[in-house]
Amino acid sequence: MILPGDGIGPEIVEQAVAVLEAANSKFDLGLTFTEGKIGGAAIDAYGEPLTDETLEEARQCDAVLLGAVGGPKWDQLERDIRPEKGLLKIRSRLGLYANLRPAILYPQLAEASSLKPEVVSGLDILIVRELTGGIYFGEPRGIRTLENGEKQGFNTYVYSEFEIERIARTAFEAARKRNGKLCSVDKANVLEVTVLWREVLDRLAPEYPDVELSHMYVDNAAMQLVRAPKQFDVMVTGNMFGDILSDAAAMLTGSIGMLPSASLNESGFGLYEPCHGSAPDIAGQGVANPLATILSAAMMLRYSLDMGEAAAAIESAVSKVLDEGLRTADIVTDGAKKVTTAEMGAAVVAAF
Amino acid sequence: MILPGDGIGPEIVEQAVAVLEAANSKFDLGLTFTEGKIGGAAIDAYGEPLTDETLEEARQCDAVLLGAVGGPKWDQLERDIRPEKGLLKIRSRLGLYANLRPAILYPQLAEASSLKPEVVSGLDILIVRELTGGIYFGEPRGIRTLENGEKQGFNTYVYSEFEIERIARTAFEAARKRNGKLCSVDKANVLEVTVLWREVLDRLAPEYPDVELSHMYVDNAAMQLVRAPKQFDVMVTGNMFGDILSDAAAMLTGSIGMLPSASLNESGFGLYEPCHGSAPDIAGQGVANPLATILSAAMMLRYSLDMGEAAAAIESAVSKVLDEGLRTADIVTDGAKKVTTAEMGAAVVAAF
Ligand SMILES: CC(C)[C@H](C(=O)O)[C@@H](O)C(=O)O
Ligand SMILES: CC(C)[C@H](C(=O)O)[C@@H](O)C(=O)O
Repeated sequence: MILPGDGIGPEIVEQAVAVLEAANSKFDLGLTFTEGKIGGAAIDAYGEPLTDETLEEARQCDAVLLGAVGGPKWDQLERDIRPEKGLLKIRSRLGLYANLRPAILYPQLAEASSLKPEVVSGLDILIVRELTGGIYFGEPRGIRTLENGEKQGFNTYVYSEFEIERIARTAFEAARKRNGKLCSVDKANVLEVTVLWREVLDRLAPEYPDVELSHMYVDNAAMQLVRAPKQFDVMVTGNMFGDILSDAAAMLTGSIGMLPSASLNESGFGLYEPCHGSAPDIAGQGVANPLATILSAAMMLRYSLDMGEAAAAIESAVSKVLDEGLRTADIVTDGAKKVTTAEMGAAVVAAF
Repeated sequence: MILPGDGIGPEIVEQAVAVLEAANSKFDLGLTFTEGKIGGAAIDAYGEPLTDETLEEARQCDAVLLGAVGGPKWDQLERDIRPEKGLLKIRSRLGLYANLRPAILYPQLAEASSLKPEVVSGLDILIVRELTGGIYFGEPRGIRTLENGEKQGFNTYVYSEFEIERIARTAFEAARKRNGKLCSVDKANVLEVTVLWREVLDRLAPEYPDVELSHMYVDNAAMQLVRAPKQFDVMVTGNMFGDILSDAAAMLTGSIGMLPSASLNESGFGLYEPCHGSAPDIAGQGVANPLATILSAAMMLRYSLDMGEAAAAIESAVSKVLDEGLRTADIVTDGAKKVTTAEMGAAVVAAF
């Protein structure tokens, strides 16, 4: 199912769908597409950011490709009907607890990083973020008025063992397929919930003797990502810390417009979306970078649809257009060929 | 009061005290010192990371200079008697809610950063972190066993209006004295407690018409710190986000061994400590950088003791030794004079 969403969402998803259609005919994949609304687009059409009907349709599909949600147009709405709630609802109701966010520096784009080349060249980190628990969903939550008339806001950061265990297993298994290093990030010197997190990781570690597990406090992890990011292979952490660290890690590459993500449930069903947001400031101008969404589509073929060959073909087509010097505005440098969203999409299709 | 703490704490504090003594005689400040134990040192001596007696002694003083706490020696202890609890106790019991963490790039040390020079040259951010509330201290908290036998960890992220208001005022006032820009960091698209945070900041803004207030989500803030940190002047945020962002910001400079911090209460009483930790791996070797602690001592003179002239003299002495090319191991580069902790301290005293 295709959920374009808001801002640049429709533009970039259009290109990704074109690439999927090219893969569809070349590899005879037999893909069919349905489309739905999420976020602000759904609020405008139905008064809520994700209807139960759209949710059910998504559940019936084999996978979901999403653009992005949100924008200033919906910022003044009541909290419960904000665009973001649509995203949180689909993640939670479809049980998409395993969010995989790669932070990869494409050699062709090494210059785009704000970090020194020697610090980031060859960077390849996978952040595994728990996505359906933690403080994002913990109860009780809200804003109450105290006896003295003062308001108080509160949220609950909560994880139970099974939630930690399943995301930990996802991360151990990912590390096993990569370089065998897993760094679990917590704040166990302050927060009890992450003391339990650390305990569960340590309990599982003997089952993965080929993976080297380490623990790091979140403040130090933020520092180490800036100082020497190549020390990491796979990082695993909760929903909130994962939100922060994965964005920082993505930005290390300087080309967040290139980074895909997958959010999976227990059975491999997944939602695929670019790491970046809806960028309302450049929406509708045809200048957004569609590559993160195109690469998300490739991830979708690989992880949820078992079409690894087609996925690899998309990825190498992307690499080829980068080699050819094609760049959208966000990653353009001197001497490169600046292209629009549609031109970039067409180039990937042509490179097939 | 002097609380050297653990790891490199005693070594670096020794140098800072030597500098304070030099300032004491040169400017006739009339300073007197008492010393106490905190963290692992206090656990070893008294079985707890901060005794009520030490706390009372600190309260009687005009200010506290602290080294750092923690180390592997105490990592296996019960949660309640870990070194960090001493730090959390003194912050909380003395009401030191306003944590000021500057992230400044010293021009002499521009090369030390992992970021490109043009991204960080001239960097000068002040992070104002709430230090006695939020999820660090919220109740209920703990690890419980559910009916199905599974364990569940939980913490509470809570702020009431007065807590937000007082730290916001600290930040608005700091921005007023600097470049008039304040960025408040929250996650108001997900967490109700930070919806209240944003409301309070917006409510106070009209009282500071000379300050330009903006809001940013914490994931975006982490990204922007990596991408273009010079866009920030003052940032204000809660305890947990402040912990993460201030460490990331400090690391942007590449020389966290240079960065001081102040933690103040309503009446200007303060605890001063370096931004970095106890670095147990290099403790006792005489190689640690004492400058963050020396600069913390300067902040102490300025903010809590109203001795701005002596503070400025210390700061310019530090600048002078950097100009002379003196560097401890953490910031050494080709062509610089590598010095020990004690040599660096002595050089600052001599530069007076
Ligand atoms: C839009 C927002 C609710 C979301 C999150 O915080 O999870 C986004 O930042 C992300 O990381 O996908
Ligand atoms: C040691 C730890 C409890 C502390 C904190 O998290 O506040 C430290 O990281 C800091 O930032 O001062």
